[in-house]
Parts: sequence; structure tokens; C-alpha cells
Amino acid sequence: MPNSPFQPVELHHASRLLNHGPTVLVTTAAGGRRNVMAAAWSMPVEFTPPRVAVVVDKATFTRELLVAGGGFVLCIPGAALADATFAAGSRSGRDGDKFDALGLQPRPGPVLGLPVLEAGCAAWLECRWLPEAHTEAAYDTCFGEVVAAAADPRVFAEGRWSLRPDNADLHTLHHLGGGLFARAAQTVQARPL
Amino acid sequence: MPNSPFQPVELHHASRLLNHGPTVLVTTAAGGRRNVMAAAWSMPVEFTPPRVAVVVDKATFTRELLVAGGGFVLCIPGAALADATFAAGSRSGRDGDKFDALGLQPRPGPVLGLPVLEAGCAAWLECRWLPEAHTEAAYDTCFGEVVAAAADPRVFAEGRWSLRPDNADLHTLHHLGGGLFARAAQTVQARPL
Repeated sequence: MPNSPFQPVELHHASRLLNHGPTVLVTTAAGGRRNVMAAAWSMPVEFTPPRVAVVVDKATFTRELLVAGGGFVLCIPGAALADATFAAGSRSGRDGDKFDALGLQPRPGPVLGLPVLEAGCAAWLECRWLPEAHTEAAYDTCFGEVVAAAADPRVFAEGRWSLRPDNADLHTLHHLGGGLFARAAQTVQARPL
Repeated sequence: MPNSPFQPVELHHASRLLNHGPTVLVTTAAGGRRNVMAAAWSMPVEFTPPRVAVVVDKATFTRELLVAGGGFVLCIPGAALADATFAAGSRSGRDGDKFDALGLQPRPGPVLGLPVLEAGCAAWLECRWLPEAHTEAAYDTCFGEVVAAAADPRVFAEGRWSLRPDNADLHTLHHLGGGLFARAAQTVQARPL
């Protein structure tokens, strides 16, 4: 599958990118340092303004950079990045640059300049940190406001996912545990009752 | 698929039930009233003690009952409940009992006595509300501690999901939007890098 230029996602559609619960890669950067970790625990919390929550343990390097840099990016890996996603969740960026180790090449996000991943990913959401000292301390839950978003139009366009056999490498991953992911491949259309 | 008795899930495995981002049915009850709504926005926030977060709009009947009853249940519908799940997210319980309207027959949960759904569901988590006035007001985000959990052993046992062709009706649903759900059917096992 050749690389495709990402297309901007309108901010009122941003929640759709996370609505179905994909595992994400959380990227951060501050003061010349950068990191990427995997997170299964994230969700939208508001449509407008578009806001999200993500659980980032207070002991992680990502948490340190999130606070220092004032933001984070939720990158949504496609199925072809399953190995890299699992690896990103299994080691610390304090031990060496994980982008290089995993072959991930970020570029600066449009608003905050944080690292966004496109090759192999279905979409990303660049988020400005909304400091909430209590929930960060009590639940490791960090909030952010989406300030820019983009997606690979082969799998998400005009606010809708399109999961087809010909874009299987971009199907989202949903971590079941132990490196086993469900892949969002099959769909079911509900009928009105 | 015949009904199967649910089996208790050890609390240290409870986060696994939500780890892959399924859409849930949130049930509540207080003072002789009860409700069920669909929610795509929930996540675990801690392994031990097992805690979760779920977004429940402050205008909803569910929010009123959650506060009045001091808890909620996250029930995880299987694919056979796609139509009922979409319908549960499209109308208000203030207009009539949705359990009856949707053919859902709850039984009392073991610790809090809140309505738990088993037929057609893969699992449930009964949760005691952890009041957090600020995040409930600012982000409609409600926290809870899991006090009991159970699953259909045909699809989740000993802390692990097993998604197979013969249990397709119990595969979890992941709402893409507009009643279109991804079904957790196919899996990918990551390899160590």
C-alpha cells in the first residue's frame, strides 16, 4: 500500500476517530526530547469543543514530556503497525529513542509542533493539555483539547470510517492483552427497532 | 446459541473487559426507577483497585439515576445486540422503560443490586460511583470502582478474550457512528521486535 497524504479532519468530526476504542500511540515532545508510548485507555469526552481523555501513568516518560510540552498527540496505528505498537508499550523511552528503535518517523504537528505519525497510521489528533491536577494524581487521567486532526482518506473521510478488504493495513487495532489485538475489519449495521 | 451462565471475573482482570474499547450499555437504578443507555466513551483508568471512567451527559436520565443510586453497570453487548444497542443510544429512558422496549431482562447485580444484563452480552462490570464534582461538571466524565464483574466463559475466561467463528454473537461492538459498528472478529498477534 503506497503512502497517501493525510487529509485534515474537521474538528467536529474528531471524536469519530476514537469513538470505536482503538489502541493509540501517544507522542510527546519537550526541550529537544521526544517519546512515543502505546495506550489502550483513551476516549473522547466532548464533541464541541473536541476533547479527549487518556490514561498516562505518572511514572512514565510520556507523562513528564506531556506536562513539560503542554500537549500530546493520539496517533491511531493501522494493523500493519501491530508489532511496533506492542513494542512501544513494552519499553520506556528513558532507555533510548523509541521512534528510531521502532522505525517511526514523525513530523511536526501543525499547531503545537508535536510529533505526528502518518506512515502506517490511520489518523492522528494533536491535543493541547488541559491541566487537571486532581484527576491526574488520583486516576492518571489526562485531558486534552483537540487542536488539529488528520486521517488517511483511504480509511476515514468526511467524518466516516470505511473498513474494507483493500485497506486492511489501516484497520484499527484494539488491544485484548498480551500483544493480541482485535482488528476492526468486519462491520455490522444496526437496524432501527 | 443457548444461554450460558456467566462466571465471575477476578477483579484484577476486570480492566481486560474494556481494554479493547467496546461500546457498552450503561445501566442504573434508584428509587424504583431504572435505565439503560449506550455509551461508546468509556475506559479503564486503573488496574488495582479496578477503576473505570465513562462519559454520561449531565442532561441524561442515566446521570440522574447514577448519582441517586450511587453506581452504574457497564454491560458489554455482543454482536447479536447491535440493534438494541443502537436503539438504547437513540432515545431517553424518561420517555418509557427502555429495558422493556428493547427486550432486555436485567437481574440484580451481586454487590450493589444494580441491573446487570447477561443474555446477549459478553460481560458486565458493576461499579460504585466515585464522586468527582469537577470532572463530572467540566467533562461529563464519571469515575467508578469495579466491585463485581462477570463474563460469558464462551468468549472471556481466565482473564482472556477468545474471539472465534463459533461465538460470533458474543463478539464485542465498537461504534463507528450512525449505527455502524466494527465487530471484534479478527485478531492479530503482535510479534516481539
